[in-house]
Amino acid sequence: MPDFRQQALDYHEFPKPGKISIELTTSADTVTDLALAYSPGVAEPVREIAADPNAAYKYTAKGNLVAVITNGTAILGLGNLGPLASKPVMEGKALLFKHFAGIDSIDIEVKHRTTEEFINTVANIADTFGGINLEDIKAPECFEIEQELIKRCKIPVFHDDQHGTAIVTTAGMLNALEIQGKKIGEAIFVCLGAGAAAVACMELLIKCGAMREKIYMLDRKGVIHTRREELTPHKALFANNTDKRTLEDVLEGADVFLGLSGPDLLPPEALRLMAPNPVVFACSNPDPEIKPELAHAVRDDLIMATGRSDYPNQVNNVLCFPFIFRGALDVRASVINDEMKVAAVEALRSISKEPVPEKVLIASQSKSLIFGKHYIIPKPMDPRLCKRIATAVAKAAIASGVAKIESIPENYLDNF
Amino acid sequence: MPDFRQQALDYHEFPKPGKISIELTTSADTVTDLALAYSPGVAEPVREIAADPNAAYKYTAKGNLVAVITNGTAILGLGNLGPLASKPVMEGKALLFKHFAGIDSIDIEVKHRTTEEFINTVANIADTFGGINLEDIKAPECFEIEQELIKRCKIPVFHDDQHGTAIVTTAGMLNALEIQGKKIGEAIFVCLGAGAAAVACMELLIKCGAMREKIYMLDRKGVIHTRREELTPHKALFANNTDKRTLEDVLEGADVFLGLSGPDLLPPEALRLMAPNPVVFACSNPDPEIKPELAHAVRDDLIMATGRSDYPNQVNNVLCFPFIFRGALDVRASVINDEMKVAAVEALRSISKEPVPEKVLIASQSKSLIFGKHYIIPKPMDPRLCKRIATAVAKAAIASGVAKIESIPENYLDNF
Repeated sequence: MPDFRQQALDYHEFPKPGKISIELTTSADTVTDLALAYSPGVAEPVREIAADPNAAYKYTAKGNLVAVITNGTAILGLGNLGPLASKPVMEGKALLFKHFAGIDSIDIEVKHRTTEEFINTVANIADTFGGINLEDIKAPECFEIEQELIKRCKIPVFHDDQHGTAIVTTAGMLNALEIQGKKIGEAIFVCLGAGAAAVACMELLIKCGAMREKIYMLDRKGVIHTRREELTPHKALFANNTDKRTLEDVLEGADVFLGLSGPDLLPPEALRLMAPNPVVFACSNPDPEIKPELAHAVRDDLIMATGRSDYPNQVNNVLCFPFIFRGALDVRASVINDEMKVAAVEALRSISKEPVPEKVLIASQSKSLIFGKHYIIPKPMDPRLCKRIATAVAKAAIASGVAKIESIPENYLDNF
Repeated sequence: MPDFRQQALDYHEFPKPGKISIELTTSADTVTDLALAYSPGVAEPVREIAADPNAAYKYTAKGNLVAVITNGTAILGLGNLGPLASKPVMEGKALLFKHFAGIDSIDIEVKHRTTEEFINTVANIADTFGGINLEDIKAPECFEIEQELIKRCKIPVFHDDQHGTAIVTTAGMLNALEIQGKKIGEAIFVCLGAGAAAVACMELLIKCGAMREKIYMLDRKGVIHTRREELTPHKALFANNTDKRTLEDVLEGADVFLGLSGPDLLPPEALRLMAPNPVVFACSNPDPEIKPELAHAVRDDLIMATGRSDYPNQVNNVLCFPFIFRGALDVRASVINDEMKVAAVEALRSISKEPVPEKVLIASQSKSLIFGKHYIIPKPMDPRLCKRIATAVAKAAIASGVAKIESIPENYLDNF
């Protein structure tokens, strides 16, 4: 048995390099086929699209095609390794899009000098696709990039490291608070990390009822407070008018710890400072801010989540991004707005409260999964995710007026 | 039976919109699969590529991935309809790449303001791919675009409308001249049309022995001659020091007519002016410069080729572009150089001189195909094309020092 490293390399090298290929959806076997697929037949859909751009959704693959686009500046936990090195991750994302939601997805790695050049490059090729998933782009550039591309593109643009993380985290967090008997509007949050994911998580939690003044966000310099002058605009939104300066200062009496930072940054003894029945999300990956066994050894009243599949309560973006795009594409939403994100949160929350299909237990090698401290969010292999989340997202898009198609079929995604 | 237009539209709409999809080449069914395909396993190939960019060819789909890129400024014979309207053509090209040569190919439609912006956009995303096929970009911009991208990209960049057309045309032309008993160095050429394809065809014919001073090229204003002052640089290369001004002037005694212009621009009576045993390539598509039945009615000593599949001697780019890329990719050529183009010409020529496999006769609905006036160039359905052309191209790349891989396997493409 080769070690895990070699297994991972072999998986990428065989049966042929990479993880995705491009295949035909039509027949190309006869001379007639070719006359329809290419010259002269292809002139007909060309004319239709020239007359009405919407016809591109009828006659080309655009409507089911999502580009996974990066500049490789924040690859997983590995940092800025450049566009080409990020390609396996982007192909992996494409694989997940297809496997979980039937979305055709292709990776595009972009090199560039300025942020403006990256934005221009993506905007220039955007019409090729039905949606754009931005990935592994470092903060603070990722905020400007996403905002500008949303403005300039007619298709949904979604930075998964921000909003996918925020949606899954918020769903788990709201369920954890409910189980712990805490009201979100009264909860004190400590967020260790102030990058793209941290900012997006806290903003979405605020939309779901958290109070901005009860949030303490920390970056490498400590607590982000109103007397710090070097803050980027996104950090400044979380500057707290407080005298607290250290992680220990803010953990005192806190209800929630959310870690989106680095390994082992939460000392076990600091956990004792938190309020009764705390919620601890240690999402640094692959090594969390605190190991669950250490946390549970210090206190037995907490709910713990991580980014890892080998512990309960895995916060995993794959629980959201394939399905939010599925719903957005299927009603041709022009954007992925807050209403659609909140709909995804609610769908995820409600699935976790329902009995789990047998096959999920088998796939996740669990004896039982019952809503509670050790099961606050669904498992990635849950077959209910696609239909439930995509339906909720599609309906929210329609209700909020951003959908071009204003109904979904009765049997929508029944057979997915 | 629906009419051809409706058939073409149906072909593009069903079974789902478009002609291509993205599929997995690996398993994604188990939790272990996902741990290898994405986090944490995917970090291993990322690290390998960060350490050595060549590893991208081992662990990602890059090495077999060709982007078909356009700005939609010269779509088929339809003109400048913009990037989105060109999407069915580009997807069609991707379909042909896959079907004929097993190359994964994705279309990218680029909008832009300046030529420089188009070049920057393509250069910025180029590392994603193993090769770039430029398509349907109007002259004269296409010349600068291709030249600049060849300089800036480490992968082969090939404008098929120029060089694919030139290779297939030259192969057919050399065979036709041979059959007519004419030496290329002595032949007088008339080229009606002065766009990208015309310039590339004449340049490649010159590389194969045609004399520049025996070429008369005509644009909309007539013969391109040395006293015209408004010529673009590419037209100026073909300015002939002559007093001849009209098509009829230059057809007098000409051995070859090559039309890359528009329908019915060669009057049948003008054919009578040509030298004995002339060669007439009327490649305007779908309507040639002269209909073959008209041409044959005027003289019986000519060899005639068109761009159409319903006449003999179809000059069809699909005879070359999938295979020249197959060969270039398989030895990781950094460019597609003249040696490789000439190798493709020679391979095409030699295939047409050999007995035709039975299945080609069936597929092309022909009773017999024997090298001669009505069969100067292979049929698109000929299964020998891939191995023969790709092998010749790969060997030429190796011999000319542009290949990263310096050998091809014994059984190369035997089973394609």
